[in-house]
Amino acid sequence: MGNRLDLLRSAIDPKSIAILGASDNRNKVGGRPVHFLKKFGYLGKIYPVNPNRAEIQGLKAYPNLAAIEEAPELAIIALAGKDTPEAVRACAARGVKCAVIVTSGFGETGAVGKRIQEEMVATARKAGMRLIGPNSQGLANFKTGAVGHFSTMFMEVPPTDGPVAIVSQSGGASVMPYALLRERGIGVRYVIASGNDADITVSELALAVAQDPEIKLILLYTETIKDPEVLAEAAAVARKRGVPIIALKSGHSSGGIAAASSHTGALVNEDGVVDAFLTKHGIARAKDVHGLVNAAELYLQGWKTTGRRLVVISNSGAFCVMAADGAEERGLPLAQLSAETVKRLREVLPDFATGTNPIDLTAALLSNGKMFGSVLPILAADPAADLFLIGFPVCGEGYDVEQFARDTAAFTEETGKPVVVTGPQATVMAPFKALGIPTFTNDTDALRALDQFSALWQSAAREPAAPSPQRGCRIPAGKSTFLSEAQSLVLLKEVGLPVVPHRLCHTAEEALAAFKELGGPVAVKACSEALPHKTEYGLIRLMLDSADAVREAFDFCMAGMKKLAVPIEGVIVAKMAAGRREFALGAKLDPVFGPVVMIGDGGKYIEAMPDFALLIPPFSTADVREALLKLRVAPLLKGVRGEPPLDVDALAEATVALGSFIHRAAGQVSSVDVNPVLVAEKGKGAVVVDALIERA
Amino acid sequence: MGNRLDLLRSAIDPKSIAILGASDNRNKVGGRPVHFLKKFGYLGKIYPVNPNRAEIQGLKAYPNLAAIEEAPELAIIALAGKDTPEAVRACAARGVKCAVIVTSGFGETGAVGKRIQEEMVATARKAGMRLIGPNSQGLANFKTGAVGHFSTMFMEVPPTDGPVAIVSQSGGASVMPYALLRERGIGVRYVIASGNDADITVSELALAVAQDPEIKLILLYTETIKDPEVLAEAAAVARKRGVPIIALKSGHSSGGIAAASSHTGALVNEDGVVDAFLTKHGIARAKDVHGLVNAAELYLQGWKTTGRRLVVISNSGAFCVMAADGAEERGLPLAQLSAETVKRLREVLPDFATGTNPIDLTAALLSNGKMFGSVLPILAADPAADLFLIGFPVCGEGYDVEQFARDTAAFTEETGKPVVVTGPQATVMAPFKALGIPTFTNDTDALRALDQFSALWQSAAREPAAPSPQRGCRIPAGKSTFLSEAQSLVLLKEVGLPVVPHRLCHTAEEALAAFKELGGPVAVKACSEALPHKTEYGLIRLMLDSADAVREAFDFCMAGMKKLAVPIEGVIVAKMAAGRREFALGAKLDPVFGPVVMIGDGGKYIEAMPDFALLIPPFSTADVREALLKLRVAPLLKGVRGEPPLDVDALAEATVALGSFIHRAAGQVSSVDVNPVLVAEKGKGAVVVDALIERA
Repeated sequence: MGNRLDLLRSAIDPKSIAILGASDNRNKVGGRPVHFLKKFGYLGKIYPVNPNRAEIQGLKAYPNLAAIEEAPELAIIALAGKDTPEAVRACAARGVKCAVIVTSGFGETGAVGKRIQEEMVATARKAGMRLIGPNSQGLANFKTGAVGHFSTMFMEVPPTDGPVAIVSQSGGASVMPYALLRERGIGVRYVIASGNDADITVSELALAVAQDPEIKLILLYTETIKDPEVLAEAAAVARKRGVPIIALKSGHSSGGIAAASSHTGALVNEDGVVDAFLTKHGIARAKDVHGLVNAAELYLQGWKTTGRRLVVISNSGAFCVMAADGAEERGLPLAQLSAETVKRLREVLPDFATGTNPIDLTAALLSNGKMFGSVLPILAADPAADLFLIGFPVCGEGYDVEQFARDTAAFTEETGKPVVVTGPQATVMAPFKALGIPTFTNDTDALRALDQFSALWQSAAREPAAPSPQRGCRIPAGKSTFLSEAQSLVLLKEVGLPVVPHRLCHTAEEALAAFKELGGPVAVKACSEALPHKTEYGLIRLMLDSADAVREAFDFCMAGMKKLAVPIEGVIVAKMAAGRREFALGAKLDPVFGPVVMIGDGGKYIEAMPDFALLIPPFSTADVREALLKLRVAPLLKGVRGEPPLDVDALAEATVALGSFIHRAAGQVSSVDVNPVLVAEKGKGAVVVDALIERA
Repeated sequence: MGNRLDLLRSAIDPKSIAILGASDNRNKVGGRPVHFLKKFGYLGKIYPVNPNRAEIQGLKAYPNLAAIEEAPELAIIALAGKDTPEAVRACAARGVKCAVIVTSGFGETGAVGKRIQEEMVATARKAGMRLIGPNSQGLANFKTGAVGHFSTMFMEVPPTDGPVAIVSQSGGASVMPYALLRERGIGVRYVIASGNDADITVSELALAVAQDPEIKLILLYTETIKDPEVLAEAAAVARKRGVPIIALKSGHSSGGIAAASSHTGALVNEDGVVDAFLTKHGIARAKDVHGLVNAAELYLQGWKTTGRRLVVISNSGAFCVMAADGAEERGLPLAQLSAETVKRLREVLPDFATGTNPIDLTAALLSNGKMFGSVLPILAADPAADLFLIGFPVCGEGYDVEQFARDTAAFTEETGKPVVVTGPQATVMAPFKALGIPTFTNDTDALRALDQFSALWQSAAREPAAPSPQRGCRIPAGKSTFLSEAQSLVLLKEVGLPVVPHRLCHTAEEALAAFKELGGPVAVKACSEALPHKTEYGLIRLMLDSADAVREAFDFCMAGMKKLAVPIEGVIVAKMAAGRREFALGAKLDPVFGPVVMIGDGGKYIEAMPDFALLIPPFSTADVREALLKLRVAPLLKGVRGEPPLDVDALAEATVALGSFIHRAAGQVSSVDVNPVLVAEKGKGAVVVDALIERA
């Protein structure tokens, strides 16, 4: 760990930098880093390497790495593809700590490039050197001036050191948020474009920048998450420091996946699992570059409000209406102001205003500018509000905007509550901005920011679920792909799932005894590890209510299995379970993220009309309840049309038990299908009717 | 009609304007219009009215309307609320054509204000005068300088006449889009804030501006649609002229509805009906002010592409990935380029680029700037693409951006296809903008614009459905709220719905005969106009397959009705219908929009988990099919899990028949509930099993 962080520090904060393929032309890939290191005042040693020149951009050039008097901490390899592997070997031999390969044409192009890429990683690892790239645009640290990044953006948009770190696989996506933040006057310290992530990944770089005590906001762009455990570690460090991470994970559409594969050689992550993972670790997911930076000012203010009750104030009724619509759409409830607050508001508002939230100051603000300053102190006294959105769709001559800004700043100062201001006129927003109040051009962006902001702090504040207590978990020996239904049910019962009462019977007499013991009606099902989908063969009879029917069904199932020539484990006689609604549970090992649990609506159309949520264990029953509320079937949980509520407790407990099982059995089991789970009315439990466990 | 348009012209293009309550202070409501009329060079007559001054802002003031030498065409009433009704009377008496009441505190405040408002309208109507407002911020025409609008925005953001008309109920919402458009250099002719719409509505004003041959884009903001027939008329005029209308209808959340009511006294429109109405009339619906103006440049270019196949080109792979994701999300498919195109692209792209769409020029564009110009002519030859999105997330020194812009302009010139360009750097976008190419800061806004743009032209290009041929439609006489099931079924059968075979029986013998004739199994149901919800009383028996069971059920239903003491119409014996999936149809008279038809998934949770679409008659089976595709159950229509496809034709025809019925029976019937409709597999029809018609 110590060693890893040291090597990562070599990447983001090197004391000396060599540029292999250094160029005199500052518009060439090998010329830009030399130009930037000089321009941005890098205080470390700069070693341009180029066998054909004695001097590069006014600096002494070296014919090769060996000619440099010390081992450079970081080396930037900006050579043709064919010369790159040799350069990696030379760096490794010279004792370079970290090499950045900016050259493209490796893992992102196909099998051949991927092999060469892997060989370079092997060379580096053998020497204890770390690699960034290939296909990286480099790393920039604007505190130290260590800008080994070749983006044109730094030629165009002047940098300022600041509290934001941008860590991206893509060069373009590293500088897009940079440009948007800089335009808003926000300083950025790190701009990192890691490329194909053949060795060092965005997750590791996120971990590295999260250690920097001056970083207050981390923005990630990634096309694949390879090492969720490292990203989880980075998230834990950031969460402990109160630093939000906003991630833009792209490449989830079919077209996006194909494009990502040829861009950074990205492997496919299942998008729902990515969502579950990010939510679990308190990382906000942005949908686009705009969403990556949209709430930056709120985070940088240091506010950490988890409440979502919103107050809207405007001199435009239309703004109030649209903000109320937008807030509801995003699940930001309008704060219910106290009667006292409304009464006091009415005293200062015009007669035709209502005093309720949204608070419409009306166009009367033009003739009575003091109204704004009078409203805020009244609201400060009401504990019902968490977030404030102030809209000035129009202002200017006749309004004392400077005073409005001072009033607003005084209000946030006094209450510590987040306030954002919006308006289309830059001149009107300027005085607010100058006092540090986040401003937006329109209400939609403002509401998006408030939503992401409060959701992030809500999720960061959630107590992480403790792993469930251990229970026995012995997977029966065998070579079949699947366990039989009987084996699956036994195992799930052992680990705490509410399995339907049933007996595995080997003779008709045992079946009849089971029927008698369980009581009718019963289901009778063929049981064989080779028949994971027994219904396809019709080897199942339901709702049997007589000894004759049970005997007939037993014989039918046995005969069926004999005919199919599958190993016969027996015939299951199971009590017909009752329940109000079918749910489906599932668990699997994601190749990247490990154990994942699915909970969703059941029935035969779960693929055609999916309605499910994913959870990554360990998780708590509270997490399951929260996930259930996002489902389309959520209204049924409480009961509709006079129906009683469902036993959500029982369903949640079963889900937690399944999560605990797949978590611990991960080496032995690759998937579990628990479908259906019949959920009865509240207090009457849930029953697993069928189950199928797949061996690892 | 001629008279109406004349009066509306008086509002938007008056030859003389009086200002009642004119003020010398240009920052007062009564001072602003005088100031603006002078400032913006109004050539008509300006008549400030103020009994206390001889001169207002350098113009001769009049003590009252009577003192003016002519009847002013337009009068702006900027007086206290108490003086406003008298001013309306004076305007009416003086022969004013149109009066604008900017004063607030009428219909939006409650019953008293509403009554006074109605009285003012009555006064005006009696005199043949039209009213705008109250609670209006006025009307601006920047072609003629007739700016009787008091917004501060025109003090701050200089106007330029142009091809856009903004018609809004709200003052704030009239100037927000104005500010955003002006910032982008787009000229705006009309900025109209109609207020409470007590007399003249936004729809009428939209109709008025749609007549202006120089208007190329109409933006609407409304909190209530009162007169859909007028808006439909405006849409028809605009459609004929090829002028898009974008509407922002707010006030659809509970908070938004409350806020709208106190803002402009808005009545509630059912939001799904608003959607159906706007779609039917080729009006795009914006979700926010940003969406109102976001695609303006595309419309103003005059492009009218209905195709949605997109090509993405960028020098950033991440841009390509994100644009592919975003395009899929919005239903903009990536164009499948021909093999020839891909081959030719590969010849000009770097080795490690793929040549497929999205087209990643890679960072190699820095060293080979000609690549961009070579790619475009290759694409021009491929008919597979409709829309082009070019992303330059980073550009500047080392890139010939001016040449890129010229290449792009030449491409659109040659192909006539829409091209938009995006990038966060204003300096990079400037040369494109200068050549008239729409530019965006980010890919999300660009994709939103392309989506709205092509969807609008798709919907405008749709052939309006012809009214269905007339069929008999005699509603049985009676005073009950509902028709009986038998009456309902007969009526629906008459108008072309596929009603289940059934008989209305009055004796057990008739029931047995019906059973024999229809064949079992049958359903037996009590039939009374007083029992619209007979299942609640259990007076229904299903799946009866014997004469005894039918006789028993008949007696049971008759006895049940006797016990409930309801008028007995008889007992229905109906064939048990088969089908693969239950759908629900419904029709009702919306208080504002008139006949509306609902089609959706059936089952008992249609309220708890709604999945339906609304259509406004007349509509075609093609319209129904399009609506069905938006439903969650859409995948089932084609058949999933090896199931056969459903008989969508039969369902669509039944829906059209219902639409035709409610359209024609609108005066007699207020709702129809057709639930369930059992839809069988393709070719096997659909069956209406139950129906309930409510009298008007």
